[in-house]
Amino acid sequence: MKIYDSQAAPNPRRVRVFLAEKGIQVPYEQVDIVKAVNRGPEFRKINPMAGVPVLELDDGTHIAESVAICRYFEETNPEPPLFGVGAKERALVEMWQRRMELYLLLPIADSFRQRHDFFKGRIRQVPEYAEAQRQNAEEALAWLDTELANRRFIAGDKYTIADITAMIAIDFGRVSKITIKPEQKNLARWHAEVSSRPSAKA
Amino acid sequence: MKIYDSQAAPNPRRVRVFLAEKGIQVPYEQVDIVKAVNRGPEFRKINPMAGVPVLELDDGTHIAESVAICRYFEETNPEPPLFGVGAKERALVEMWQRRMELYLLLPIADSFRQRHDFFKGRIRQVPEYAEAQRQNAEEALAWLDTELANRRFIAGDKYTIADITAMIAIDFGRVSKITIKPEQKNLARWHAEVSSRPSAKA
Repeated sequence: MKIYDSQAAPNPRRVRVFLAEKGIQVPYEQVDIVKAVNRGPEFRKINPMAGVPVLELDDGTHIAESVAICRYFEETNPEPPLFGVGAKERALVEMWQRRMELYLLLPIADSFRQRHDFFKGRIRQVPEYAEAQRQNAEEALAWLDTELANRRFIAGDKYTIADITAMIAIDFGRVSKITIKPEQKNLARWHAEVSSRPSAKA
Repeated sequence: MKIYDSQAAPNPRRVRVFLAEKGIQVPYEQVDIVKAVNRGPEFRKINPMAGVPVLELDDGTHIAESVAICRYFEETNPEPPLFGVGAKERALVEMWQRRMELYLLLPIADSFRQRHDFFKGRIRQVPEYAEAQRQNAEEALAWLDTELANRRFIAGDKYTIADITAMIAIDFGRVSKITIKPEQKNLARWHAEVSSRPSAKA
């Protein structure tokens, strides 16, 4: 078993933090995304969508998509649970996890991808959309600050995958100058707490 | 228990098809998204992101996000399993489900949202991005046709939530003139099969 990883991208960090929280060690193999090795024909046999991370199982199965990889380890190593326990809690964690992806990580990622030179010639870039998504991300941060007024973590009183997604999204926002504002005190308090966990360095 | 629903949008159909496959009946309450009732202050108490569908449990809990609602019912009514069984299969279904969302449903939805009058004044529209995403969606369909050369359903030999997401995405593509091409015979075969299931009419 190994994970195709990159230290230079937010999604692989999501899986590394998740595994650190679980106390699971998996060998990592670095993929040079700066040289676009992930977009070459060899890597596309592993993941046709060209994304990292990818988990390779001992039987040769490749599991792409960060949350699918996390889900695999939640099933094999249930403790501590990071997707919730029981039907209602699992659904609420999934709701928050998806909100953090759709309304925070996706706008923050688009703010970078849709205008940065790194993706020039790699995707169809629309710089005007980068700006629209930057504004959407700023709005999402303001909203999330109000949500965190009444609870410790994104999905409730327990640390979950939704916290990991939100943390890696916000940390990746720095490259596009999207940051927590001084008045967003709930968000700042939450970010300080999740960032102080040993897993955040993974 | 009830579900805030709309017959006019693709995501609520995702949940209706899922429930039909499970044989679960839940009362639906229509939300008038044409009149933007979902964007008003009352509905935002139910879902601050203003989206439908939303599941309301008997204890008053609101679960938004289509896949979170499906996940709830997968836990309460495991048969037939639509998210896979066992760690590896569940991870692979999640991978395919996410690929269908990120590379098919999202581009198809953006092709509509980013330029259609329906969303004017409701979101930050960038028509040029609608066109970029239309092209991305066309590429995704061509790729999916090759994937379906060797298997019956999106994630393997069993019908799963990934098939539901792909079906509602492709059917929603019609409003943006994104359709299966005559030469995409594997995709056409798959689409005919999933569309012939009674659940497709839900």
